[in-house]
Formats: sequence, structure tokens, C-alpha cells
Amino acid sequence: MLNNLFRSSGISRLGRHKTKKSMTAIINNLCVIGTGLIGGSLCLSLKQAGACKHITGAGRSEQTLQKAEQLNIIDDYKTDIAKAVKDADVVFVSVPLGAMQSVFEQIAKGLQKAGNSKAIITDAGSSKQQVLQLAEKIFPDHGRRFVAGHPIAGTENSGPEAAFADLYKNRRVILTPTANTDTDAVERVTSLWQQTGASVETMDAQHHDKVLAATSHLPHLLAFGLVHCLENMEDIEDVFRFAAGGFRDVTRIASSDPVMWRDICLNNREPILDMLQRYRVEMDMLYNALQSSDGEKLKEVFEHAKQTRDKFTH
Amino acid sequence: MLNNLFRSSGISRLGRHKTKKSMTAIINNLCVIGTGLIGGSLCLSLKQAGACKHITGAGRSEQTLQKAEQLNIIDDYKTDIAKAVKDADVVFVSVPLGAMQSVFEQIAKGLQKAGNSKAIITDAGSSKQQVLQLAEKIFPDHGRRFVAGHPIAGTENSGPEAAFADLYKNRRVILTPTANTDTDAVERVTSLWQQTGASVETMDAQHHDKVLAATSHLPHLLAFGLVHCLENMEDIEDVFRFAAGGFRDVTRIASSDPVMWRDICLNNREPILDMLQRYRVEMDMLYNALQSSDGEKLKEVFEHAKQTRDKFTH
Repeated sequence: MLNNLFRSSGISRLGRHKTKKSMTAIINNLCVIGTGLIGGSLCLSLKQAGACKHITGAGRSEQTLQKAEQLNIIDDYKTDIAKAVKDADVVFVSVPLGAMQSVFEQIAKGLQKAGNSKAIITDAGSSKQQVLQLAEKIFPDHGRRFVAGHPIAGTENSGPEAAFADLYKNRRVILTPTANTDTDAVERVTSLWQQTGASVETMDAQHHDKVLAATSHLPHLLAFGLVHCLENMEDIEDVFRFAAGGFRDVTRIASSDPVMWRDICLNNREPILDMLQRYRVEMDMLYNALQSSDGEKLKEVFEHAKQTRDKFTH
Repeated sequence: MLNNLFRSSGISRLGRHKTKKSMTAIINNLCVIGTGLIGGSLCLSLKQAGACKHITGAGRSEQTLQKAEQLNIIDDYKTDIAKAVKDADVVFVSVPLGAMQSVFEQIAKGLQKAGNSKAIITDAGSSKQQVLQLAEKIFPDHGRRFVAGHPIAGTENSGPEAAFADLYKNRRVILTPTANTDTDAVERVTSLWQQTGASVETMDAQHHDKVLAATSHLPHLLAFGLVHCLENMEDIEDVFRFAAGGFRDVTRIASSDPVMWRDICLNNREPILDMLQRYRVEMDMLYNALQSSDGEKLKEVFEHAKQTRDKFTH
């Protein structure tokens, strides 16, 4: 399935690129919009790799930008995004999906005003189809210089304080270029991510959104739902007092940023609804098996699940 | 809620006991039936604490017992449970709940034949009401010498190779004695667990089963269900290839032992069905909120869940 969806030209191009690390161009001016966990960790990692001469931060909250500057995540900052992108070679957007449209509009305005038509724009949004639609609408030439991306990495923490240089080491980054996307822009963004220690793959945005709904968005909803469901029990104190490692692991991601996850749900609505529907069928089956004390059925499901997980994680 | 259910006399007694660690009696002969993760870790921990003179292993599989002996978890073993318990001061039963009845019957037979009426029997089963029913039926004097217990600890791994001495350190152990249970037996089992570094609490078996259904059994079913649900997707390779830490954490416990979890489900059926029903209502609510693109509702649920988890885990 995946093989069919891979942009095969992209793959071979990226493959060659990977072996020529010494040829990697240094970015003179990187502008990072949103200097929290995702953007901040990229900055720290690129600085550590010596891959960036200057990083300008931008964003809505001056307090966050000040903190990021104090932590040496960025070299300076501007609260006006249009001004921040003026001299950028690369603009990296790591804001919640719900803020994407407004940020894109300010970037387009700033680049146009400065006559900067070479800047490459890329993002870190967790769903890609809607981001691409925005980019094609807002940026010149149907977003020719925009490379949609998604690092498969993160923690349940947020903000500049949560950022660390190794976040992307040995992790995967998915790029979802379209037929419009400039080849050199894809190469540049690929190289940028490779310098964080990540491996880069390209795929179709629709496929990305489907896989991520299963692998990330559904599990987050389950975890939020589990904790919220238990909140209303009269025994909530005990539930957490007697929670073992299993419970803590399952619910870890329920400590994730609510606004970010609201936006992801709304942006990737259809694939997530599809996964929730599949999951409801599954859980109803388990309910019915237990209600009828069907031990054979329960064991069969548990065995399959264990085999599948063990196979893919070892 | 919990306070009402605590056996207050038990609590104060256990509290005093905790401060008298030097008075702790050493167990001359411990018999452990089931020498996997739970039983094996108890043996290693008690040996490390010098709390046990001799440990005899017993169980169904000679291969497992041989492995446990090689790993110095036990000093010797017998495949005949009735013979193994003959000289025991304490018998610890750590077998899947489905094997409990047969194991209890063999213990009762062995103790009776040897004229051993002083041995204390305790277990590590994850649900307590059905275990207590069995014990009261099978052991003499309505299970006067039986102390139902449950260490809130474990990993997704099983077998003697998975055992380690620190498994119970700083973890909680719940005992659910009844009105029939001998006070000295409860004290002895409390002391045994304290020597592993665990803290011991007593509560009503019904309350235990309800809390554990929420805190452990439901999360396991969610994890098994999630992996099993994804198995049927055509993109299963991708799902695991692009799985980040969140997915791995949520599904870790889906690698748990299927037989053990089938037995837990069947033994704690009613409280688990109740939790599955509550969870279904919760997930339907999330589905409907997303279907109607109700971002406010989603954010509200996510915020509540995050606050609750952060509050109880920090």
C-alpha cells in the first residue's frame, strides 16, 4: 500500500541526498514561527549541528519568545510575523493547526512586501490535507515554495522549556509535497530535517492523514476519553492512587495540549471519525464477548493483539 | 469513599507494624506456586532482603521451574503442588486466575495430608471477590489462614526471565481480608510485602475490584482493542512504522499475557462491563462532538482530562 503511495522520484532523490551530507547548505536566516516544543527543539538541534547562522523567532506571545531567547533557542525575535520573515531563507511554522491560516497570511504578506520570493516555507502540522489547501490558496504560485511536513516526534509537554536538541534523533519526518512543489524546496527541507538526526520520507497527504488518524489521533482521543470518563467516578482519588504503570502509560498523552488536539481533530475530522467508528465496533465486540463470558473469543483477540504488537515493536 | 471502605482497625494495625521492621519474622519455608514475573520477583526481592530461609517453587510447567531454579529465584522445586506445600510457613499463589481453583484444591489437600494447619496462604490475583469465594469454599475454617492480596505492579513481560528484585519497590499492595481472616495472618503477609519495599493497604474486596476495573482492566482492554482494531487495516505496516511514543505507550500493555487477561476479564466481569459501558458513552460523546465539529466541546473535554491527569500524577 505505502509503496504505491510513495512518490518514487522523491524517494530516490532523497536517497541520494542522504549520502551527500557534506554538501548540505547552511541556512543563513531561519525564521521559526512558534517556538514551543516542536519549533524550539528544531532550533536547538540545528544550532547544535551548526546548520544555521541566525534564527529569528516569531509568534503571538512575547512572553514565550522572551523565554525562547533566554534559553538560546532563538537569536532574536519579532512579534510581527510579517516583519520576522523579511530576510528568511527558510520559514518554519510550528503553531497549532487552528492558527495556520492567519500565520500563513502574515507570512505571505511579509514576503511579498520584502520582495522575498525565494524563501522556502515548511510546517509541522499533524494533519496535511487541510494545511496544503491553505498553502495553495494563500501562497503565490499555488504554494510552489511550500513543503508540507510532519515530524513524528513529541512529548506531552509544551512550551520553550520543553524543547530539547535530541527530540528528532532517529525519528521519522514525513513530507507531503504535491505536484506543484518545487524540487529544490523539498531537497532543502529534507536536508534540514536530516541534520536533526531524523530520517525523511515523502508520501501522499491523504495517506498521511489516514495513517496518523490511526497511529496518533485515535490513541490520543482514547487517552483523553479514558481520563475524562474516570473523572466522574466517585472513586477518582483511588483510581489514581492505585494506578500502576499500565494506566500511567495509557494516559500519558492525555496530558497533551488541549488546543493543539482540538485543532488536529477538527483538521483531520473525516479520517478520525472513520477510526473512531472502527474502534467502536471493536470495543462492542469485546463487550459482547465478555457479557457472554466467551473466554475463547477474548483470548483470541488478546493473542492477536499481542502478536501484532510484539512483531512490530521488536 | 475509600476512607469508609478501609478496615480502620486493619489500617492502624498495619501502621504500627510498619514502624517495627526490626521485629519482622524471617520465613523459614516459603512455597511459591507460579514462578513467573510476579512470583519470581517476590522471591528475588525477599532473598535480597534476607527475609526467607528457603524457597520451594511449584507449578504446572517443569521447564519454567527449572528456569527459575537456574536463575536462583527458588532453591528447589516440585511439580506436585500438594507435596511442595507440605512444610510451608507461607504459600504464595501467583498463577492466572483461571488456575486458582485447581491450585487451591491441591494446596488444601497437601496441607491436610501433612497436618500443616499453620501455613498462611496468600495470592496475587488481579480481582479479589471470586478468589475469596474460592478460598472460603476450599480452605478449612472458611479460609481463616488465607489473605487475599494484589500487588499493584507488573510489566508487559512474563516468565521467570522477566522477574526482578525491585518490581515492588515503592509500589502499593492491596490486601482484602474478610471478617474470617486471622489477624496474625494479615500481619504476616503485610510484613512479607513490606520487605519488598512496597506499602500495604487493606480494603474491601468489592471496592478493590471496582477500582481495579477502572484503573487497570479497562485500560488493558482499550489497548488490546486498539491494536486488534488496527490489525485489519490495509496500512498496518505504516501504522507501526510511523508510530510515535504516544502510540507505543498506549499499546504497551497490549503485549501482556493473553491467558492472564482473559482470566481477569472473566473473574471481574461485572465491574469491567460497567466500566466498558461508561467508556462507550464517553467515546460516543467525543464522536458526536467531532462529527458536529464542536471544537468548544472537544477542548473542554481535553482540558478536563489534562487537568485531572496532571493533578494526580505530579
